[in-house]
Amino acid sequence: MNIDLNADVGESFGPWTMGDDAAMFDIVTTANVACGFHAGDPEIMRKTAELARGKHVAIGAHPGFADLIGFGRRRLPGLTEREVENLVAYQVGAFKAVAALTRYPMTHVKTHGALGNICNDDDALALAVARGIKAAAPDALFLVMPGMATERAAEKLGLAYFREIYADRTYDDSFNLTDRAKPGAVIHDPEEACRHVMRMLDAGAVVSVTGKTLKVGIDSICVHGDNPRAVALARTLRDRLEAAGVTVARYTAS
Amino acid sequence: MNIDLNADVGESFGPWTMGDDAAMFDIVTTANVACGFHAGDPEIMRKTAELARGKHVAIGAHPGFADLIGFGRRRLPGLTEREVENLVAYQVGAFKAVAALTRYPMTHVKTHGALGNICNDDDALALAVARGIKAAAPDALFLVMPGMATERAAEKLGLAYFREIYADRTYDDSFNLTDRAKPGAVIHDPEEACRHVMRMLDAGAVVSVTGKTLKVGIDSICVHGDNPRAVALARTLRDRLEAAGVTVARYTAS
Amino acid sequence: MNIDLNADVGESFGPWTMGDDAAMFDIVTTANVACGFHAGDPEIMRKTAELARGKHVAIGAHPGFADLIGFGRRRLPGLTEREVENLVAYQVGAFKAVAALTRYPMTHVKTHGALGNICNDDDALALAVARGIKAAAPDALFLVMPGMATERAAEKLGLAYFREIYADRTYDDSFNLTDRAKPGAVIHDPEEACRHVMRMLDAGAVVSVTGKTLKVGIDSICVHGDNPRAVALARTLRDRLEAAGVTVARYTAS
Amino acid sequence: MNIDLNADVGESFGPWTMGDDAAMFDIVTTANVACGFHAGDPEIMRKTAELARGKHVAIGAHPGFADLIGFGRRRLPGLTEREVENLVAYQVGAFKAVAALTRYPMTHVKTHGALGNICNDDDALALAVARGIKAAAPDALFLVMPGMATERAAEKLGLAYFREIYADRTYDDSFNLTDRAKPGAVIHDPEEACRHVMRMLDAGAVVSVTGKTLKVGIDSICVHGDNPRAVALARTLRDRLEAAGVTVARYTAS
Repeated sequence: MNIDLNADVGESFGPWTMGDDAAMFDIVTTANVACGFHAGDPEIMRKTAELARGKHVAIGAHPGFADLIGFGRRRLPGLTEREVENLVAYQVGAFKAVAALTRYPMTHVKTHGALGNICNDDDALALAVARGIKAAAPDALFLVMPGMATERAAEKLGLAYFREIYADRTYDDSFNLTDRAKPGAVIHDPEEACRHVMRMLDAGAVVSVTGKTLKVGIDSICVHGDNPRAVALARTLRDRLEAAGVTVARYTAS
Repeated sequence: MNIDLNADVGESFGPWTMGDDAAMFDIVTTANVACGFHAGDPEIMRKTAELARGKHVAIGAHPGFADLIGFGRRRLPGLTEREVENLVAYQVGAFKAVAALTRYPMTHVKTHGALGNICNDDDALALAVARGIKAAAPDALFLVMPGMATERAAEKLGLAYFREIYADRTYDDSFNLTDRAKPGAVIHDPEEACRHVMRMLDAGAVVSVTGKTLKVGIDSICVHGDNPRAVALARTLRDRLEAAGVTVARYTAS
Repeated sequence: MNIDLNADVGESFGPWTMGDDAAMFDIVTTANVACGFHAGDPEIMRKTAELARGKHVAIGAHPGFADLIGFGRRRLPGLTEREVENLVAYQVGAFKAVAALTRYPMTHVKTHGALGNICNDDDALALAVARGIKAAAPDALFLVMPGMATERAAEKLGLAYFREIYADRTYDDSFNLTDRAKPGAVIHDPEEACRHVMRMLDAGAVVSVTGKTLKVGIDSICVHGDNPRAVALARTLRDRLEAAGVTVARYTAS
Repeated sequence: MNIDLNADVGESFGPWTMGDDAAMFDIVTTANVACGFHAGDPEIMRKTAELARGKHVAIGAHPGFADLIGFGRRRLPGLTEREVENLVAYQVGAFKAVAALTRYPMTHVKTHGALGNICNDDDALALAVARGIKAAAPDALFLVMPGMATERAAEKLGLAYFREIYADRTYDDSFNLTDRAKPGAVIHDPEEACRHVMRMLDAGAVVSVTGKTLKVGIDSICVHGDNPRAVALARTLRDRLEAAGVTVARYTAS
C-alpha cells in the first residue's frame, strides 16, 4: 500500500517565519504552498518551491482568503461563486508562474483555512473552486476531502484529483472536520493521531468521533506544519506507517 | 500603414474608480491591465477582461510595484533581479489565470510605472522582466520601448515583442522618457500630442525634445487612461491618424 | 430650531478619489473622516482636516473595519469586544494626532459601515466602541443613533454625545436602518429625502417605513458623501431646512 | 551611575511571532513598540502594553515606514517632511490610544529602521519627526541618538528627550551607525558588545570604529530584540553592567 503525506508550507511572511519547512520536507511527499493572500509572498513562494525541488517534494498552490491578520481562518461573509473563482484563479496562476521560475512545476491545488471549510460543505462554492483551478491550471490535481463537495466538484468538472484524510483533526458525523471551536477538534498527541490514521486506513473509511464510517478512497494524509510540534507529529506518523508496511510516496495517478 | 493604440486600464481598486475604461475601449486596440499590486484587484481584473472581450480589445498584464498608496510610481530602492522576476511572474500568472476565467486570453505584458522606468535603462533588470514573462506566459508578447533595454531583453531571450511610442510624453536625448519631475515631460494639449506622434511615425524614429532622432520600428502608440482628459486625447489622436490614412488596428505579428 | 448636518468625507485612498469633499464642506457643518482602515490614508486625513478647517466644518474620526476592498461594509465574523476597543482606539488616536498637526482639533467620533451597524444592535459592542473612544479621546463627542445601543453606551460611560437621523436611509420597525440589501433601504430622490427628514423633525421622532414612531432627541442629520448625487441631495436638504426656518449650524453642547 | 536599557518589541504581526518579548521584559527597562506599519497590529500593540505594564517596563511608540514585507528597513525614496510628520503623528497617536486602553501610559517615542536612519542624518526630517511627536503626544520623551539630528530637533522644538547608544552596532567616524551593508556593522558576540558599551560609558562618549570619540550624554543602551541571540546578549549586558556597579533603571528626567 502507498500513501502520500501532505503539509501546508510557505506560511512565513516578509520577515516573519512560521513552521520549519526544511525539516518538514524531509518527511512529507507533497506540500501546499501559501500564495500571498493569507500568508507567503512572492519571494517566500519561490524559496519554498526551490527547497521542495531539492527534496523532490511535490508542490501545489494553497489559495486562501485575503486576510493576513486572520491567517485566512475567518469566514468572509456573503462570499459569491464569482469571488471564489477569482480568488482561486488569481492565486493558482500566481504560484504556477513563480514555480515555473524555479523550473519545478506546480502539480496540485488545495484550498486553505476558511475557504476550504466553506467549500467542503457547499457544492456551488466547491464548483467555483474547481472552475478557478481549471482556468488557471487545467492539468493540476485537486486535493480534495473524500465524500465532500470538493470531490463531487472535481468529478463533475473532470478535474484530476486525489483524496486526503487529516491526521490531527477529528471528523463529525457529517464526515467533515469537527469545528475548531469545539473540544476535541484537534488531536495534539502524536500517538493518538497515528491511531486515528491507522484506523481510517484499515477501514478504508473516514471515521467520525462517534464511530460512524464513510467508505472512501484515501490517497494522502494531511499533517499540519504551522506549530512547533508539527514536525515531531509528522515524523512519528511516517515512522508508524512505514513500520506497518505502508510505503510513503508522492501521489501519482495510477 | 497599420498602428496599434494601447492604454493602461483596470486601474480602479475596490470601491474606487479610476479612468473611464468603457469609453477607452471604444478607441484603443490594446489594453494593459493592472494586476492588484499598484492598482486593480481580482474582481476588477476580471471585469476589465470581460469588457475588453466585448469590444475586441487585446488584453495584457501590467505588473508594477506592490505600492497602492504610491500607485507604483515610487522607485523601490535596492531592487534585485530576483525580486523583479518574482514580481513579474506572480502578476502575469495571476492575470493570465483571471483572464482565462473569462475565456478571453491574455496576449501581452507591459511593465507599469517605476518598474517600467527602471527597466528601460537597465539591461540586467530588463532581462529579469523578460525571464518573469517567459516563466509565466512564454507565448505572450512583450510590449517594449524601442531602442531601450526592454527591446534588447526581448531579443536576447527570444520573446515575441512589439514596440510603442508615447503620445503624451516627451523623450530626452537618451531616447528614454523625460523624467516626470521635469517641465515638458507630459504633453497636455491633444493637438500637440498628435503632432508629436505624426512626427515620429513620419520619421520612423523616436524624436527627442532637442530634435535628435533614433530610427526604430513602431508598432503601437501609448495613450494614458488615468486622467479625465485621457479619453479626449485618445479620441483626437485616433481621428487624426485615420484622417492621415493610418489604419488603427490591434497588433498582430506579421 | 438648530440642526447640524453631517457627512462622511476623506474617503479617497492613495491615488483614488471618492466624493467631492470641497463641495460638501460648503453645505455640511460636521464631517466624519475615514482613518485609513476602510478608506483614507495619513495624507488624505490631513488634507481633509485642512480643508475642513478652512470651511469651519467640525471634524471627527470615522473608524471602520480593516477592509479596503470591501470599504468596511462587510461584517467581520466573530468580532470580540476587545477587537472593537482596539479598532476604535487605534483609529481615533491616529486621526486625533493627524488633526493636531493641522492645529484644528478633532471633536467627535462616529463608527463607519458594518462596524456601525453591528454596534447599533449590540449593547456589549456599543460599550466597547465607547471604551475605545474614551481611551483615545475622553472629551470627544460620540455621534450616535438615538434610541439605539450606541446612545445607551454613551449614557452609561458618561461620554458626551449628539444624535443623528439619516436623510437618505429608511428605518425598520426596530428603528434601526433598513438593511441595505432590502428594497427601499436607500432614498435616492432628494425631495423624498427632504420630506423624510421634515417628517422626523416635526414629530421629534424616528419614523419607520410602516409609520411607527420613536420619540428621540435629534441634533444632526446625516447625508451621504460617497456618490455623485450626494452633493445635490445635501444642497437641496439644506435649502429646504433653511426655507422652513431651521438654522443649520454645527452642533454645540448646550 | 544609572542607565536605562531599551529594546524594540511588539514586532510580531497577526499569526506571526518575532522575538521573545516576555523574556526581554525581565531584562530591559524601556520598550519601543511597533505600531502596525512595519510590524505589530492593534491587538499585538495592546498585548505588548499589557505585558510591559506587568513588568513595569516603560513603553513608547516605535513608528516606521508602511512596509511590512521590508520590515521598515527599505528607504522610501523622495520622502517629504510632510509625509514624515504624517507617519509619525498617525502611529504615535494610535499607540498612545491603544496604551490608554490598558491604563498604562505611553511615555516615549523612537523612530524605527530606515525612518530612523534617514532622520539621524537630516535635520529637516528630524524636525519633521519631532513635530509629529509634538502633535500626537507633546509630553512624550523623544529617544534620540546623541550628537545627531534627532537630538538637535528635540532641543529646537523643546521636546523632552533621552539619549541612547547601541550595544550591538558599531559607529562610523560621523558617529552615526555603521551602514548594515558594511562588514562589522553588527556586533554578534555578547562579550564584545559589553566591552563596546563599557568603553563608551567610561569615556562618556560615542566611540567610532577607528577610535574617534564624541563626548555626549548617555541615558540608555539599545539592545536588539528581533533575533534568537538577542535575549542572551541583553542578559549578559545587564549582568556586566550591574557587576560594574551600574544601576539599570528606567530613565526618569532628573
